[in-house]
Amino acid sequence: MRAFRLEKTLSGLGFDLIAVDGKARAGLIRTPHGEVPTPTFMPVGTQGSIKCLSPKQVRSTGTGVVLANAYHLMIRPGAEVVAEAGGVGQWTGWEGVTLTDSGGYQLFSLAELTKVSDKGVKFRSHVDGAPLFMSPEEAIRVQNLIGADIIMPLDDCVGFPVERYRAEESVRRTLLWARASKAAHKRDDQALFGIVQGSTYDDLRRKCAEGLVAQDFAGYAIGGVSVGEGTALIREVVGTSVEWLPPEKPRYLMGVGPPGDLLAGVAAGVDMFDCVMPTRNGRNGWAFTARGTVKVKNGAYARASGPLEQGCDCYTCRNFSRSYIRHLFNVGEILGMTLVSLHNLRYFARLMQGAREAITAGRFAEFCSDCLAGLAQEGKGEAQ
Amino acid sequence: MRAFRLEKTLSGLGFDLIAVDGKARAGLIRTPHGEVPTPTFMPVGTQGSIKCLSPKQVRSTGTGVVLANAYHLMIRPGAEVVAEAGGVGQWTGWEGVTLTDSGGYQLFSLAELTKVSDKGVKFRSHVDGAPLFMSPEEAIRVQNLIGADIIMPLDDCVGFPVERYRAEESVRRTLLWARASKAAHKRDDQALFGIVQGSTYDDLRRKCAEGLVAQDFAGYAIGGVSVGEGTALIREVVGTSVEWLPPEKPRYLMGVGPPGDLLAGVAAGVDMFDCVMPTRNGRNGWAFTARGTVKVKNGAYARASGPLEQGCDCYTCRNFSRSYIRHLFNVGEILGMTLVSLHNLRYFARLMQGAREAITAGRFAEFCSDCLAGLAQEGKGEAQ
Repeated sequence: MRAFRLEKTLSGLGFDLIAVDGKARAGLIRTPHGEVPTPTFMPVGTQGSIKCLSPKQVRSTGTGVVLANAYHLMIRPGAEVVAEAGGVGQWTGWEGVTLTDSGGYQLFSLAELTKVSDKGVKFRSHVDGAPLFMSPEEAIRVQNLIGADIIMPLDDCVGFPVERYRAEESVRRTLLWARASKAAHKRDDQALFGIVQGSTYDDLRRKCAEGLVAQDFAGYAIGGVSVGEGTALIREVVGTSVEWLPPEKPRYLMGVGPPGDLLAGVAAGVDMFDCVMPTRNGRNGWAFTARGTVKVKNGAYARASGPLEQGCDCYTCRNFSRSYIRHLFNVGEILGMTLVSLHNLRYFARLMQGAREAITAGRFAEFCSDCLAGLAQEGKGEAQ
Repeated sequence: MRAFRLEKTLSGLGFDLIAVDGKARAGLIRTPHGEVPTPTFMPVGTQGSIKCLSPKQVRSTGTGVVLANAYHLMIRPGAEVVAEAGGVGQWTGWEGVTLTDSGGYQLFSLAELTKVSDKGVKFRSHVDGAPLFMSPEEAIRVQNLIGADIIMPLDDCVGFPVERYRAEESVRRTLLWARASKAAHKRDDQALFGIVQGSTYDDLRRKCAEGLVAQDFAGYAIGGVSVGEGTALIREVVGTSVEWLPPEKPRYLMGVGPPGDLLAGVAAGVDMFDCVMPTRNGRNGWAFTARGTVKVKNGAYARASGPLEQGCDCYTCRNFSRSYIRHLFNVGEILGMTLVSLHNLRYFARLMQGAREAITAGRFAEFCSDCLAGLAQEGKGEAQ
């Protein structure tokens, strides 16, 4: 397979495919706010902040793209406030690439949902219960104001398991809304992606992917995964969806975080990932390491002089022992959440960096099996 | 008055008096973990963490000395744990000077106090109610383990107002405990200070100061202030206490934070200050500025594009608007507390830096009146 170079277009996005190893790809995303090597993991700052971390701390982990949620920012402080401040990157002090999700997923999970129709979603604000309506056009208008480099259309997200007729409806509506979104999109410095739905039905995933590709988006996301279907089905769905996507556009697997699933995603040809897992688990004192999870609140670490992860180059591991971090959680000091979240983001960034290097060197399969063997050692020889 | 230079002695502390302007002094404290220009403000990390900030963030504010509380660290994680980890600086990742308070004040405020005698304080742990006993000797043993550069003896702290007989008892016991503390002190790389008590009684303050000076400590603290007596009395007490302290030793005013009171302390000849105010107020969204307090949660700042303080060189002010910080508080993001705390520490460090420069230039009185005139403008022309 040859390397593609997608020149910066009206979509505001360029994508270089640098190396391919099996189905796995190493690439480079180019945006008005910088370039990001792929595969890349994107931490989630739902309300415009990666929880417990400053943008500088996030940057120090090697993170290139951060997410924010258009639905949340629309409610508070309002998309116009963010627009006035120069857009979400400028406003939040993030000197890098930004991506907003429309918040479709949140409408289906957080808000008190009243009604979905082809026009959009009627719902109540999760903050004050105010009745609101989100249409595909409105989701784009809001994201044009918020101004992230990459934006996502409103899609019709279904849970798992779901009846075939509902999955069919979801695909039909997602394609309808994708078309409406593209028509509503006004800024050529922002890249609009399409989102593949179709639950676990192979033919529906294909239908959705092909329908979106016919509409021609700057990149393609695989949505409606990690909604309870389990790891095996996630991998199947990803494989099925990717198959029908064009190689020259970036692919983004939404909401998937476990390291093993990320590696499977990369192996299937995915370029971008996001998940709250590194920061949410970090706030709970769970550290990701090459040898599985370290639960640093554990009393066994009261005097442990080693870092969260031996050999990690993050600020946390270079400066603090498990003993100290355990103490911070034990006495309720916020710095504990900060330090483990920071380490976790570095772990995810290093995992992606390792994958890129392995792909470039043509030894991605070996890299994967090494990583998985390490992760399988969880709990062995822990306390240091 | 000539400049003194106190060579590094068994006390582990050196102090150079660099310039004097009126009673105000500019100096340099030298310790095994670095040098700190005075006057200096020392933020409080009661449990071994300056709340919501990493040591790197604290360092970026120009802070030279951080406090921890021996009583708290003795309860959790235990002084031996800190000792094993190489002492409080090493354990907490602070590359600078450390000071521990004995926790005497906490015994009188936090814990369920059962009995004070000349032997010490019988009390219950504020964590689990376990019966504990703190003697002056134990307070030193614990601090010798924790290993801060500067340590404080247990003292008999009284509130305000207090009957003369109780203040007399406090002075007698504080002198008794000071002697016991000095005898118990085992490490020549740690400097033990004496603490002047005596409430608002001038003659008792003098008696306590002279008694301590006769015992010869590495430095002298003024304790039992900021316990409800109000600003005017604080200033009187500080003036009275400092009068009887030797010029060649550093002077530390405990627990006083309002900028005007700090300037008054410096004017009276104090070199070191600590207070929870910049971080506690920061967590509440109150920013210190040269023009008074900015309460950034205020709805008036929803679209304010200016920084917390115009011209401030801190990370917060260089990168974030009031609008964004207000949003962080509004939606409950911890980064808001971090950013305002960080700014506040920088404000206090800049205030002390300004005082040092003014003293060296012989224009401290002018500096003070400029600062006070600025602070008096609170609330004028706020929203930006």
